[in-house]
Amino acid sequence: MIGRLNHVALAVPDLAAAVTLYRDTLGADVSAPQALPEHGVTVVFIDVGNTKIELLEPLGEGSTIRPFLEKNPSGGMHHVCYEVDDIIAARDRLTASGARVLGDGQPRIGAHGKPVLFLHPKDFMGALIELEQV
Amino acid sequence: MIGRLNHVALAVPDLAAAVTLYRDTLGADVSAPQALPEHGVTVVFIDVGNTKIELLEPLGEGSTIRPFLEKNPSGGMHHVCYEVDDIIAARDRLTASGARVLGDGQPRIGAHGKPVLFLHPKDFMGALIELEQV
Repeated sequence: MIGRLNHVALAVPDLAAAVTLYRDTLGADVSAPQALPEHGVTVVFIDVGNTKIELLEPLGEGSTIRPFLEKNPSGGMHHVCYEVDDIIAARDRLTASGARVLGDGQPRIGAHGKPVLFLHPKDFMGALIELEQV
Repeated sequence: MIGRLNHVALAVPDLAAAVTLYRDTLGADVSAPQALPEHGVTVVFIDVGNTKIELLEPLGEGSTIRPFLEKNPSGGMHHVCYEVDDIIAARDRLTASGARVLGDGQPRIGAHGKPVLFLHPKDFMGALIELEQV
């Protein structure tokens, strides 16, 4: 069911400093920052050839990244996103097996303009998993 | 400098249960477990097409995964591994910029039989980064 790794998301407390770190120190190909207020983040995309790394900084008071950074003030690995062909079929298979989908269980349109869902990390050994229909 | 994402490593408290979860619930292509006592882990590899997910369970008392699981008993995202062409050149560039390499600073042979280094997460916004020469 799960397909390619679409991206790994890292939460960072200071996106400008993170861009400098990844571009200058790690020599990576980093995009310009994009504010996504409807997702509560400002994001940069790092193209590493076979997948993407996304650096997320909280945007707005209700940002879901904010509680993570309160627990991990230096930042850290936030989630992994796998591609699926059919997000409704994937959700139904997962919930039938007892796994929980975050929120109201309905896919919403993610940062790439495609339907996404997040799975409860308690059901996946502490890893926050995003599914994106491609 | 950093190249492709070689793998994402997730620490798990129970590898047999993790295999069931990833194979049966998430429908992933999971390898047989391999004990790597010299690395203090038992590992399974999940081929997601464009990269790998590695599930790590502690093996032996001195396992470096063990303190992570003491802090995160359910498991969690442990590290990301980027490929580099020349690990000595990468190390020298990173240390010249002030970044710290874990251990004695010398590459050792990693789980795939290739030279690896780990970078200090405090220098990379809380993310533990492995570099592997390919």
